[in-house]
Order: sequence, then structure tokens, then C-alpha cells
Amino acid sequence: MSDFSIRPVGRVESTLITRADAPRQGDEGAPDAWIVFEEEVRDALADLEVGDAIILISWLDQADRDVLAVRPRDDDTRPVTGVFSTRSPDRPNPLGLHRATVLAVDGLRIQVDNLEAIDGTPIIDVKPVLGDVDER
Amino acid sequence: MSDFSIRPVGRVESTLITRADAPRQGDEGAPDAWIVFEEEVRDALADLEVGDAIILISWLDQADRDVLAVRPRDDDTRPVTGVFSTRSPDRPNPLGLHRATVLAVDGLRIQVDNLEAIDGTPIIDVKPVLGDVDER
Repeated sequence: MSDFSIRPVGRVESTLITRADAPRQGDEGAPDAWIVFEEEVRDALADLEVGDAIILISWLDQADRDVLAVRPRDDDTRPVTGVFSTRSPDRPNPLGLHRATVLAVDGLRIQVDNLEAIDGTPIIDVKPVLGDVDER
Repeated sequence: MSDFSIRPVGRVESTLITRADAPRQGDEGAPDAWIVFEEEVRDALADLEVGDAIILISWLDQADRDVLAVRPRDDDTRPVTGVFSTRSPDRPNPLGLHRATVLAVDGLRIQVDNLEAIDGTPIIDVKPVLGDVDER
């Protein structure tokens, strides 16, 4: 099968600087952060509003794409596990899913809460949370 | 910003053949389907088990990537909306999020329920549902 090309639509601005700083999930103490979008997707984000529940999809560009199985962090007793059964950032296509709420909108910048992605992480898509699909 | 290259890890085998056949979300009458994975990711899927709640991420290869705003299907009264506030497949990076349950595991093939992606759709990642993050 052929490869596909992904172009980032924005980038994270965060106080989280290194992978070691980042909590594993957004509910484990991650800070508010800004997403700075590219001018060419201005029309795509025109309807994002404060209070919107969104899913940010990131490209974890510091990940190791050759990793297929991992031992869970902080738990040496668990066996090595295939990455499709984990949220490890190290995986063949290192996509991150981040559920967040829009805190502020300022032109091409939006502020969100609880984002565990580190500063500079590319954002590749934004979707609204669908209550009846994503929250069940 | 530079582009990134995504390599499909598998492909959908489904009775849904065209985009017009596909429901908009997996709870709107989508069929069970199989995912056929590539040999090189065998170790990544080794721990998927019947009953697992997973998120499949697809690459909607029939989408129009130049679309930034859409009028919702089946509702002409709604205004044109920026795609980051919709689940339209037409968007700059046409990623699909599909929540499903594993029904069967057979080597490199897994069967899932309620998959609205059409036959042949590339799958680019699989993640476990995290109850406390994804279901809130």
C-alpha cells in the first residue's frame, strides 16, 4: 500500500518542553496550551467557539515509529504489550488523540485546557466531540 | 512546516462499497467489518482480544482535502460550517475516528462491529479506549 502525506494545520504552544515533562493523559495534570493554526486553514476553524468540546489529533514527531510493543511506563510487572493495545506515543503512525475544551479564540490561535502534548507538537486535525458517539 | 508520511497498517474489508452507502457515524446502522493488517505490524496487534473497546483511525482516501467548510448533509437550513467544527470526511487531513468493539481475532485479521468506513479504506492506527479519558 502506498503512503499518504500529512500536512500539519497548526502547532502546540505549551509550557511542556520535553517528553519527560508530559503526563500520559490530559487528565493527569496537563496545562492549558495554545494551538497556533496556519493561515491556509483559517476557514476550517472559523466556527470553533469558547466552550466547544473538541478532539485534537497531533503528530507525535518525537516518537519512535519502529516500536511495535512496549512495557507500560511505571509498571515493570506488566508484560510487553503490542502498541495497538496501548496509548504509547511510540508506534508506526504516531498519532495523538487529545480531548480538550476551547478556552479562548484569538484569530488563528485557540487556547485549550489539559493538553499533554509538548511545545511544538504538530496538530493535524480538529474534530468536535459527538456526545452520542465519543462519550458512550 | 514539513509534511509527514503515513503508512497504512491495514485495510477495511466491508460490505459498504461507496461513500453514498456509508452512514455518517458508526451508531447509524453500520455493519460489522474486518480489518486486515499488514504482516509488518503483527507484533503491534498481538494483544488485541475479543471484547476490547478500540478506536480505529482511518485515512479517508476518497475525501477532498481542499474543502475547508461544508454544509451539513441532509440539513440545508444550517449554514456552511468550518470543517474543524464538523465530522465531514472532506478536510485537510482526512482522518476518520471509529469507535468499535473487537468481535473476532484471526491472525492478521480482526472483526469489529459498527464500522462506517467503506471497503478498502486504509487503517493507520488502533488505540484502546481509555474509559476515564474517552468516555467522559
